[in-house]
Amino acid sequence: MELIIGPRRFSTWSLRPWLVLKRCGAEFTVRELDFNTPEGHAEMLSVSPTGLVPVLKVDGETIWDSMAISVLCAERFPEAKLWPAEAKARWLARSAACEMHGGFGALRTHCTMNPNHPMVGPERSPTPQNDAVAADIRRLVTLFRGMRERFGAGGDYLFGEWSVPDAFFTPIATRIRHYQIDLAQYGDEDGVAATYVAALLQQPDFLEWEALA
Amino acid sequence: MELIIGPRRFSTWSLRPWLVLKRCGAEFTVRELDFNTPEGHAEMLSVSPTGLVPVLKVDGETIWDSMAISVLCAERFPEAKLWPAEAKARWLARSAACEMHGGFGALRTHCTMNPNHPMVGPERSPTPQNDAVAADIRRLVTLFRGMRERFGAGGDYLFGEWSVPDAFFTPIATRIRHYQIDLAQYGDEDGVAATYVAALLQQPDFLEWEALA
Repeated sequence: MELIIGPRRFSTWSLRPWLVLKRCGAEFTVRELDFNTPEGHAEMLSVSPTGLVPVLKVDGETIWDSMAISVLCAERFPEAKLWPAEAKARWLARSAACEMHGGFGALRTHCTMNPNHPMVGPERSPTPQNDAVAADIRRLVTLFRGMRERFGAGGDYLFGEWSVPDAFFTPIATRIRHYQIDLAQYGDEDGVAATYVAALLQQPDFLEWEALA
Repeated sequence: MELIIGPRRFSTWSLRPWLVLKRCGAEFTVRELDFNTPEGHAEMLSVSPTGLVPVLKVDGETIWDSMAISVLCAERFPEAKLWPAEAKARWLARSAACEMHGGFGALRTHCTMNPNHPMVGPERSPTPQNDAVAADIRRLVTLFRGMRERFGAGGDYLFGEWSVPDAFFTPIATRIRHYQIDLAQYGDEDGVAATYVAALLQQPDFLEWEALA
């Protein structure tokens, strides 16, 4: 298998399936394309049906979309337990990961993973744009707290043991850190959500990604 | 099970899991909330963790997100064959459905399902906004043609027999019809994609939804 990704410093969508593949213990190579150069951009258009990364080359097929790649991995590596075993936890883990897949538009648009972007948490600069970001953060805090409190007993991650939603929320954790967003100001007074975010940022595979970036 | 949806005439996200549940032959009730009224909006906020529809009430849980609901149904009703049985077809079916779940932003934003919206296909009004819509339509045509030509032999749908991607693309079919978008102008000269779109609009469950709307 070959995972084709964007630049590690910027491509949050690439980080997600990379974490999933690492968790599987899968043998895979990585091709990093710098889509900011003409050559990298042209190569991305030629290898990806959507013109976007990530894509996974597997058994002669090109599979696109971070969620579709993650589900393929869950099917191919059942021993990696990429989704919670208990039915209700699994249903909600899929809801959480799919919510990240399609949502949190304000946070994704306005708090990009660009390390050169000025760091301004929305609570320090109230504008309509930042109001939308703040609403996204409040929703994240509610989600993180709710799942951790109900399902988190078996480990440090959203549903205890590491699972697909953790891959999907890791880029968000980097944004919370980068923008120095104080989750206590969004309903996390006792730090349940902040502790979860810290766990994502200490996960060994993520630390390896950061070292390579 | 109870599926909580938005107004049938407008809520494209609600149509998708409704089609999936119908395909399963599942016993379920529907609660339609008019989120344009203060009461409907308040009820939506109280029943949905995200404040959005659709949500599915099942076994005392509230499951959100159209894709998460669809995957739950595939797990619960394996005899409905909601994903293609052949592995590569299944991988690509997930890629296609996930691409719809997270993408086609220009088409979704600018060609809404509002029946009162003026009908103007982007090819008749070139603007930067419509250029983005046109790019989405070209991508849809490429996707529809590629999957139909490779996997469509067993039926009228994207992967032959009806599967989850067809649920996800049915609202798009209504937009193509409503905006009178001529797919031949987007790379579908011989009508392979248009024939698929017509099949979605003739599917019996969709006709039932339309009659209720």
